[in-house]
This record gives sequence, structure tokens and C-alpha cells, in this order.
Amino acid sequence: MAVLPPNVTADSFASAIREYEAAVGAEWVFTSDADLAAYRDPYSIFRDTERESLASAAVAPQSVEQVQAVVRIANRYRTPLFPISTGRNFAYGGASANLSGSVIVDLKRMNRVLRVDADRNFALVEPGVSYFDLHRYIQERGLKVWIDCADVGWGGPMGNALDRGMGYTLPFFREHANAVCGVEVVLANGEVMRTGMGALPAADSWQEYKHGFGPDPSGLFFQGNFGIVTKMGFRLMPEPPHYRSGAIRLPKRLDLIPAIKLVNYLSDSGMLGEVFYESPLRALLGNSGFSAAANRRGGADPAEMDRYAADNNLDSWQVELQFYGPRATCLANWEYAKSRFESEVPGASFLEGESLDIPLTQEQLMNPRPWFRNGLWHREVSMGIPSLSAWSLVDARSAAAPDGQVVAHAGFFPIIPRSGEWVFRAQQVFGDAIADMGLPPFNAALSTPLVWAMFAYQMVFPLPDDNEIVHRALLRLVEVGAENGFGDYRSPPFHQDHVSDMYSFGDNALRRFHETIKDAVDPNGILAPGRGGVWPSVYRQFRHDWSRDA
Amino acid sequence: MAVLPPNVTADSFASAIREYEAAVGAEWVFTSDADLAAYRDPYSIFRDTERESLASAAVAPQSVEQVQAVVRIANRYRTPLFPISTGRNFAYGGASANLSGSVIVDLKRMNRVLRVDADRNFALVEPGVSYFDLHRYIQERGLKVWIDCADVGWGGPMGNALDRGMGYTLPFFREHANAVCGVEVVLANGEVMRTGMGALPAADSWQEYKHGFGPDPSGLFFQGNFGIVTKMGFRLMPEPPHYRSGAIRLPKRLDLIPAIKLVNYLSDSGMLGEVFYESPLRALLGNSGFSAAANRRGGADPAEMDRYAADNNLDSWQVELQFYGPRATCLANWEYAKSRFESEVPGASFLEGESLDIPLTQEQLMNPRPWFRNGLWHREVSMGIPSLSAWSLVDARSAAAPDGQVVAHAGFFPIIPRSGEWVFRAQQVFGDAIADMGLPPFNAALSTPLVWAMFAYQMVFPLPDDNEIVHRALLRLVEVGAENGFGDYRSPPFHQDHVSDMYSFGDNALRRFHETIKDAVDPNGILAPGRGGVWPSVYRQFRHDWSRDA
Repeated sequence: MAVLPPNVTADSFASAIREYEAAVGAEWVFTSDADLAAYRDPYSIFRDTERESLASAAVAPQSVEQVQAVVRIANRYRTPLFPISTGRNFAYGGASANLSGSVIVDLKRMNRVLRVDADRNFALVEPGVSYFDLHRYIQERGLKVWIDCADVGWGGPMGNALDRGMGYTLPFFREHANAVCGVEVVLANGEVMRTGMGALPAADSWQEYKHGFGPDPSGLFFQGNFGIVTKMGFRLMPEPPHYRSGAIRLPKRLDLIPAIKLVNYLSDSGMLGEVFYESPLRALLGNSGFSAAANRRGGADPAEMDRYAADNNLDSWQVELQFYGPRATCLANWEYAKSRFESEVPGASFLEGESLDIPLTQEQLMNPRPWFRNGLWHREVSMGIPSLSAWSLVDARSAAAPDGQVVAHAGFFPIIPRSGEWVFRAQQVFGDAIADMGLPPFNAALSTPLVWAMFAYQMVFPLPDDNEIVHRALLRLVEVGAENGFGDYRSPPFHQDHVSDMYSFGDNALRRFHETIKDAVDPNGILAPGRGGVWPSVYRQFRHDWSRDA
Repeated sequence: MAVLPPNVTADSFASAIREYEAAVGAEWVFTSDADLAAYRDPYSIFRDTERESLASAAVAPQSVEQVQAVVRIANRYRTPLFPISTGRNFAYGGASANLSGSVIVDLKRMNRVLRVDADRNFALVEPGVSYFDLHRYIQERGLKVWIDCADVGWGGPMGNALDRGMGYTLPFFREHANAVCGVEVVLANGEVMRTGMGALPAADSWQEYKHGFGPDPSGLFFQGNFGIVTKMGFRLMPEPPHYRSGAIRLPKRLDLIPAIKLVNYLSDSGMLGEVFYESPLRALLGNSGFSAAANRRGGADPAEMDRYAADNNLDSWQVELQFYGPRATCLANWEYAKSRFESEVPGASFLEGESLDIPLTQEQLMNPRPWFRNGLWHREVSMGIPSLSAWSLVDARSAAAPDGQVVAHAGFFPIIPRSGEWVFRAQQVFGDAIADMGLPPFNAALSTPLVWAMFAYQMVFPLPDDNEIVHRALLRLVEVGAENGFGDYRSPPFHQDHVSDMYSFGDNALRRFHETIKDAVDPNGILAPGRGGVWPSVYRQFRHDWSRDA
């Protein structure tokens, strides 16, 4: 085998493998290059370089008891483990570990939907359950509950929530970590622990009251390495009877400021599903004068942008609203939204969207109105239906790359405060940073917030296809973002140390607190060393010093 | 001084007091019996007995830096600390510590409202801010945001949330720990740490995205002892334009089962504020035959209860719904609720409530409709207005007690799964337990769930006024509750070890995990030893063995 865990001899590793085989069955321990290829990150910036993270082996336990056995063996042989659920977390590292040489704990065989209760609106699942699995389970039984899906349905609710993924329905459900209710973990010492009401053995309320009694450590397991999560409960959204959409168009650039205040009001009051912001001015991007205006250093000039809008009879912004609920409620909320925009944003105009009873017919499902942002993908996930359509965006990008080149994918989604002023500031900061690096401009002034999180915005920034450039650009964007108050919410393993460096309040007090806990509960450092930027003392020398890349 | 911390000599304690005085000012260190009386729990079951928890001193820092200084002194002199915010957490111990002899850290002087943003709907407060303080701040500035208040307005949002208190508006805001967004803590080593986006120094999104990057330890500080919280952010509810209420009456006992399913649907879809369940059959409690039926061992017989209802032309249940939002939305949601009940619960009838534009006039505020449960108190807190009215319930109970007797108050609010079957089961389990103890029956079959938590129910059980009986009854109810799956969500310090014992999954794996962390991050065990059932090793012998009380 080419790769071994740090400080483990080939002989010792061979003994560990024999023990893993005894614990989970020889056919569920993988060591060949061919088998381990499946655990490489196909979109790593470092793919095929000496810095690529490679697995030393993979083991696929089938039960909690087998996970416990694996953890105990890892402690004896000091083989670091990296647990994955479906392992399809592409653009965030896929199945690859922070520490090269880790043993991947592939939980795909633990794929039971343990319970869905459509009267009390929750689910309890194992790690390997995909969105498709859970959706099929619900559909086969005719249950009237929705799951909030991530972009790509081959991922699963547990893995996505543990990485704090986000979705597309009502705000509470959309921030997936919020909707988690009850966690079972195998700790580094091999014990099984349950949080919330799961700690009360006879309780049937594990998926209803998440806090339980006393302190709640659940948050330590998200983007963390304090245990291997083996069961997770989720709150589910009741299937609404009706869906309505509508769009608001705003003539002037600075109209975004009152518009965001109004959307905050409507969303925090529980009236809205996900909101899509768009700029109709994108139609002018073929005009070089306009492109210069949209990429101006120091940020766009509102008056200049407004002149282009007026001269071309275009609005500056479009805000698409989605409503779920009883038919009359959806209509009343839309009418209320229009009345507020009408009185508070002069010149606002309105586009009526769709008004559809749920469940949609197949024809309704497959034919979103033409102006629905990104088409079918959003239609499906907005209806609680997992989809693979989003993957076509990545496929298309890879297909367009030069012959044989592997195109890196790495997410950079900073958190933006929820105001128009902060959105403009983010456009300027990241637009200038891209320009400073000599990269192709991306029309920063037209970039719009993503309304995924319950109470915050995010933004996405396109990068070129060259892996080395992407690597350096990401480093710079993370830093310039942090300097200006925009922090990445999630990162692939190979950038986690760098992102973690930015969350430095109190001379890195938060990370130090985590690492103190890590050394206490996982003294051999065997669980996902480095995940979330948290390194156990035995592997702390592997924390990457990013100044070496600068 | 009568009480010293364990294992601290009078000389050493006197030195510690001098250091505390140097750190916060001599006038803010309290050691006299008269001064320390204010920190006794006036409603302790053990008041005036040798088991009462007494403070050795109290210190009142004015700033984060002074809190850090206090923590460092405590480490040097091994004086355990017990932080309080407003200290008015009556029925849950007030200002009294788990460990007698602790130094109370009274944070009342840190009472600044640091920020309220009514465009982005959040607040940031210090520990000593009361609900009244925050409400006044918002009213003085004419801001259109509501706070979700606990029962009694002299408490404060931070202390209540840290004890996982609950309130009265929309579900997300009602479970106060959910609405927390961003925490600053002074750790046991004196360092200051911020969670979520607060860890990114330049971020303005601390109160908008609570998870930040990497693991999130925030849950450790609720009902916990891993730090002294010095700042806390809260999501606020936007002021709705309208309020509507209505009640549904259900003829038969088993109608509660479909009714709860429908309420779950409406509530989880975001249509409802808090729901009040009541039984009109209470009107029959003067009838001894009916009382026997309502207190029958093994649970009430539905047919017998239905005969009483039919013979007296009474409904079995009343479900009061509250709606917030645009006027047309409130009406549409109420009409939808009625249509669902009409088609799914035969014989359901409806009472129209109020339809009021917000803000209410003073006259509307002070005159809730007569059938509004518990009158003015609920009217105020349902409108985001702090109130002292609830305190009158306790006052009345004390006034009715024999001359000079101090009446204990101790909350027992077990979590009940959200179904009619489980509500009936809880009625039976606790009704039988009360009967087994020979205590006065409380008409178990008419007790109704409290809809405070976002996705779970709670129930309340009246107890007699004799402290010794209350003590033994609580012990038994906690145990019989746990045996049947109903866990207490919160407890006064003197019962926390016992409640914590019930959360025993995996041979107390959760508590062991917490105590491993506790010893690592607070090796001298100076922060609130015993809180939430978590004892540091240096004081672990003080964990109460409740079998001694059986």
C-alpha cells in the first residue's frame, strides 16, 4: 500500500487491517488502489499532486456495534479515522480526509430510514440514507411531509446537515442544522451517547425536543470531530396545500436597500419560502460600457447604473417570492407583500407567478415558468423533491475544460449581513479582490445574495478553471473576506485550516477551546483529525501553515 | 462569615475577598448576612434547613474585564463561582447555587442593551438586562420588533434562555434557546470567547448566522457550567400588523387525538402562535361522580367521560388558536383551520375570538375577552409585552399558606410527545403516581398540554404546600416520569442531580462526556459546580445521592 497513516508501520497497519476485517467482514475492508480510488476527491485542487489527501484504507461497518469496534481498533493501532455518510459532498472534499493516510469509515451500509412520523412531523435516519432514499420511503407510504433537500439528491440529510448544508423551502427547515432534533454518536472511547431526549431511555420525544436536560453538546458534532454520528433526527415540513409565486421588479440600484428590509420582515414573520434575487441588467452584459460600470473598482456608481437601466427600459433588480400554505393564505401574503413594496419602494412593479395546488401534476412539476431562476432544479427542491439537475452545472463546466484536465470545485460561500448596504459592500470587496488578482471580472455589481440561511445571506463567486489559480484565489478571497467581515461558512478539508484561522477572536480562543476538549475526549486523536480546523495534539503538527502558500 | 466554600480556610477566603474588592470595588463585594439574604432562594424546599444552599459572598462585576479578573481570583483561591443574571429565576432556585458556599457572581450591573436592529430583527444584550429593560429600549425608539417574554418580566432574556425558558409568541421565538444567535463567554481560564460569526473579528453577522465555522460549542453554556456568558444575541419577531384568535370545541374525549394532529400541522406550517388547550368539563368538578371519573386509576374511561359531557351538554375540549400576520392572512389561516377541523373531527364547533390591529389600544390590551385563558398575563406576553401578572399566581398561593410558612416553589414540567395518545398516557401516569402517594387528586383526565416548546408538549402538576411532601413528591414524579418516557426539561439546583440521573442512556454517557470536558476546560472546577448535574472532579463528592432521600 502506498499510503500509511502517520507514525504507523506497515506491519502494524497490516495487523490493524486484519482486526478491521474481523470486525466488519473482510469484504467490507478496502485497501487496493482500485477500491480506494472511489474515496479520492475527484474535484480536489491538489488532485494528482503530492498534496492530495489519500486514504490508507476504507472500512464499511453495518451497525453501531461495528462502528464501536472500529473506533476501538483505531485507538489500539493509532489509525486516524475519517467518517463519511454518502461521501458525495463534492466541492467540499467528497470522501477525502483532512489528514492523508486516514482510514475512511464509509457508513453507506447503515442506510435505514428508522422512522418517519407524519402526524408529529419528524424522521430518524442512519448515516447512509440519501435524499432519494428518504423521499422514496415517504412517497411509498403516501405520507404528507416534505424533506428540505440539498442541491444534489444523491447526498443525504445527515451528511449534509453535519456539514451545515442549506436548502430551499421554509427558513427553519432550510438551514439543515437547525432542523436536526436528536443525535446518536459513537465517541472516541467507543461509547454510544445520545443527545436531547435521547438520553432519557424511555422517551419517545427524541425528535421533538432537542435540548434535553443540562448542557447540550450537539453542536460539537457539526463540522467537527468529537464523535461518529450514527443516528440523526430531523424535523420535517408538513406538505402545504398550495404554492404561489410572484416577482417584484425594482427600478433603481439603491432600491435593494428597502427591498431587503421588506424581505427580512416577510421572511422572519414566516410568510416566505426561499427568495431569489436577480438583476435584469444582466441583459446588458454584451455592452462593454455597461460591463465596465458593473465591474468598476471601488464598487458600482448607483447613478451610472441607474442611467443604463433607464436608457434600456430595464429594472435594476428582480425579487422572486415563494409562498406555501392554504390557497387563500398564499394569496393574502402575496397581496400584503405587494402593498408594502408599492408604498415603500416607488416604481416597484409586479409579475404574477404561479398558483398551484400541491401535489403538483407531473406536467406542472416539469414545466416551471420560464423566468424561474435556474429552471427545473429549483422547481424540484422547492417542492421537497430531491434532484440531480444541479449536477449538470458542474458537468457542463468539466466538459468545457481542456482535454483531460480535472477541474477543481471548491465552494466559497461567505456569510453576508442581511442588508442592502452590506450586499453592496460585499460586491465591492470581492470584485476589487478579483481585479487585484488579475482574474476575469465577474460583474460584481450584479451579483446577488443567496437566501439560504434562516437569517443571513451568502454570495457565490465564480473562479477560473486552472487549479493553481483557484487555489491562490481562494486563499486571497478567504482573507479579504475576513478582513471585511465576511466569513466562509463551510470549506473543503484542504482549506479548513485557513478558514479556521480567520475565526480568530480572542487570539483563536474558540479553536483553543475545541482543541482542549478534543484532547480530553479523544486523547489518541483518532477521529477526523483536522476537521473544522480542530487538530488533536498528536497530529497538531499537520495543521497547514498557509503562509507557505502565499 | 457563617458559610465558607468547601476546603477553603477563613484566612484564605478573607484574602480572596480582598482581591475581589480590588477587582470590582469594595462596595460591590457582599459578605454580610443581610446582604447575602438577597441571594437565598425564598422558595427553596430546604429553606431554613441545614440543606439550604447559601452563598459565601457575592461579587458584582461591571465589565467583561472584571468578570475575567473574578474568574482568575477564583482559580487562585479555589472559590467556586455561581453566575446569575437577574437572579429572579424563582421556582428554579432564584440566585442560589448548586454548591453551598459558592461565591455568587451577580451580573446585574452589566445591564446594557448593546444593540437592537429592527431592519434585521435582532438584539444583543448583557446579562443583567431584564425583559422590562429591553422592552423599554424598543418602545422608546419606536422600533417594530417584539421580544418573546417569559412568565415574569423582571427576569431577563439571557438568564431565561440559558435556563431554556419558554414563552408565548411564534414557535421559533417561543423556545428561547432557539432564538439565541451569538454568545460571548468568559471561560474558566479567564479567556473571552465568542461563538458563531462572533469569532470572526470584523463580522457584523454575529446575530444573523449562529453556527460560524467548525464545531459550535454554544449548547454547552445552556443549563451548563462551561463559562460565564457576558453577551448574548437574540433573533426578534417582527411586529405583526394584526392579531386574530378563535377557539374550537370538541365534543368527545378521543377527539383530542385528531385535534393534536391538526394543531401539529398548523403550527409546524407556521400558521399559529401559542395554542391553549382547556377542558370545559372542569365545570363539573363539583359533581363527585364526575370527579371520581376524572381521577380514575389507570386513566379515565372515554365512554364514561363522554356520557358526562353529553348529559351536561358540554364539550370535552377547547382549543384556542392565535394568529399573527396581515389581517387577510390571519383570517385565511383561521378559516383553513376551521375547514380542517370541520371535515376531520365530527361535531367540532367554533367560537370566533378577536380580530385586532396591532399595536393594540390600551383598552384592548387591558381587556382580553373573558374566556382568554388566565386573562391579562397571557394577553400581555402574547403581544410581546413583559408582565408581572403571572407572579400573582405565586403570591396568591403564598398568601393562602398557614401563618409564617414559607411555601416552596419548584417547577416540574416534563416533556410530553406531541400526540393525544401520549397526553392521555401522561395524565394516567402522573394521576396514578399522585394517588399512590396519597396526595390530593388533581383531576388528571382534564389536565392539558402546554404548547410552549416548538415541537413538544409539557404538562404541569399541582402539588400541596408542605415542603417535605413537595420534596418527596417531586422525587417520585421525576422517577415515574422517566420510567414512562417523560423527562423534566429544567429543574431548581437542589433537584438537578436527580433529574440528571434520569438522562442515563449508555450508562450516563452524556453526563460522563460533559464531566470529561469540564475537567479539561475548568480543572479547578470553579464555574458553577453541579449545574445541570455536571460536577468537576474536585467537587464530585458533592453530587447528591438521591437514594438517601427515598
